[in-house]
Amino acid sequence: MTFEKIAIVGSGAVGLYYGGMLARSGKDVHFLLRSDFEAVQKDGIRLLLPDEEVHLDNVNAHRSAGSIGPADLILVCLKTTANEAIPTLLPPLLGDATAILTLQNGLGNEPLLAERFGEERVMGGLCFICLNRVGAGVVRNFFPGSLTLGEHSGPPGERARTVCDLFRAAGIDCHLSANLLETRWRKLVWNVPFNGLTIAAGGIDTQRILSDEFLTGEVKALMIEVQRTAAALGIAIEDQFLENQIEITRPMGPYRPSSLVDFLDKRPVEIQSIWEHPLRDAERLGVPSPRLRLLHALLRALC
Amino acid sequence: MTFEKIAIVGSGAVGLYYGGMLARSGKDVHFLLRSDFEAVQKDGIRLLLPDEEVHLDNVNAHRSAGSIGPADLILVCLKTTANEAIPTLLPPLLGDATAILTLQNGLGNEPLLAERFGEERVMGGLCFICLNRVGAGVVRNFFPGSLTLGEHSGPPGERARTVCDLFRAAGIDCHLSANLLETRWRKLVWNVPFNGLTIAAGGIDTQRILSDEFLTGEVKALMIEVQRTAAALGIAIEDQFLENQIEITRPMGPYRPSSLVDFLDKRPVEIQSIWEHPLRDAERLGVPSPRLRLLHALLRALC
Repeated sequence: MTFEKIAIVGSGAVGLYYGGMLARSGKDVHFLLRSDFEAVQKDGIRLLLPDEEVHLDNVNAHRSAGSIGPADLILVCLKTTANEAIPTLLPPLLGDATAILTLQNGLGNEPLLAERFGEERVMGGLCFICLNRVGAGVVRNFFPGSLTLGEHSGPPGERARTVCDLFRAAGIDCHLSANLLETRWRKLVWNVPFNGLTIAAGGIDTQRILSDEFLTGEVKALMIEVQRTAAALGIAIEDQFLENQIEITRPMGPYRPSSLVDFLDKRPVEIQSIWEHPLRDAERLGVPSPRLRLLHALLRALC
Repeated sequence: MTFEKIAIVGSGAVGLYYGGMLARSGKDVHFLLRSDFEAVQKDGIRLLLPDEEVHLDNVNAHRSAGSIGPADLILVCLKTTANEAIPTLLPPLLGDATAILTLQNGLGNEPLLAERFGEERVMGGLCFICLNRVGAGVVRNFFPGSLTLGEHSGPPGERARTVCDLFRAAGIDCHLSANLLETRWRKLVWNVPFNGLTIAAGGIDTQRILSDEFLTGEVKALMIEVQRTAAALGIAIEDQFLENQIEITRPMGPYRPSSLVDFLDKRPVEIQSIWEHPLRDAERLGVPSPRLRLLHALLRALC
């Protein structure tokens, strides 16, 4: 099982970063680009890492999936707000054994891919990382962070281990998850409050949120709502994990979560996958989530 | 008991409107003005009522309370965010029997006046009305609305009836309240959600709030939190009252609550009296108020 040819669908911060790191490690990476196509074709990709600056020349930049053709591995890095494009974007990239790895935020992404392209193809990954696209083809990474991968159906096997090694060989701290859904809920513990409150509190960064005792209280209260819904799904998230999420955020400084960046740039915000889907789960399971409800209603109006 | 000489302290929309209506009815009304002083002295006051336009010439406009001197009745119409000015503004207006009527929003205003000037002087009034100051000395009134008055301590007696008659003679639908605190909490049922959500949802009017099913759900949920805290204080507010608050808001159209107008004009918003004080009561009494807490934290950050 080898994954030589890799297609990156959705070349925002996440796609450029992971694709760029894989390309640097010698993989045959093809980027499906829209707004950054010309800049990347001309100037390549620049990754501003914490300790070095990576410049990739001669990037395989494509305007259409058809010109990429079948790949061994597809990284789906689209914003979930663009998920309606998936049925037309992916088919030209699919060979018999192509694996599809979604690195998208929130809930509902693997099921969507599984329904459309078959469960056996689908893997999911969660990026615990601070990435901002700061220009066409240019991504800044504040912290190395980590990537957690898993299979949509069942525990990770040889394929997952191979993909994980692929990322490790590219310099990415990659881990396997035996329970992707659990990992997704753990990530929501951070995304729900921080991505949401930074927008709803007027477009302020995480440092300003955490320097306000009232907002910090609301961060914690929202985390508890997420924790309780996860618990109702059989996913145990320990209290200490919640505390840690606050602590790891402090050293990030004036960080703008991806949703805030989208909001400030007047792009669509991933409301459905980050807030609406968890809220639907909470309501279905009868878990009171008053703050998530209010935050979701405000974000719908604001974004 | 007569109230011939009336001093208006705080001549924003509320002060100009009630003072203007009383002046039109023949009372000796004196306005303490700051930003609108010159405009009002030169051009008087204009009240754009639903069915007519009232223009008052020769208005008694003052720059200082000292030039007004002792009055029979003081209407305190300051924003509660300016309450720290009360100890210096009111003393020159006080005679032996001067009554002080606060028409300010939210909680905590009568206690403040009572502590400083004596309980027996203090009355409170609640304006159920849509008023917007649309220019210097110019106020637009969308609905006639009503005014509810009471004594800070004890039931309404001769004084309250006399003041009530004064407003009625000025064309204002005035009622007496036997329990001012109850009336204040009833008003909070409206102010807490509508004044707050119109700001937090991005500066949108009440019509846009009520055209959004999610935000309307949050309006109702916030009303229930206020209702429950009131209940813990021994104040029963019936469910039907909450429903009615939604219904009376629909015909107001694209109305901007006073707090939203303050917010959009970058003036201080009355966070303490409208959200913080009720929240403190809720917490002291152990009434869960997750939405009020979140809304309060967001408003503190936004305003």
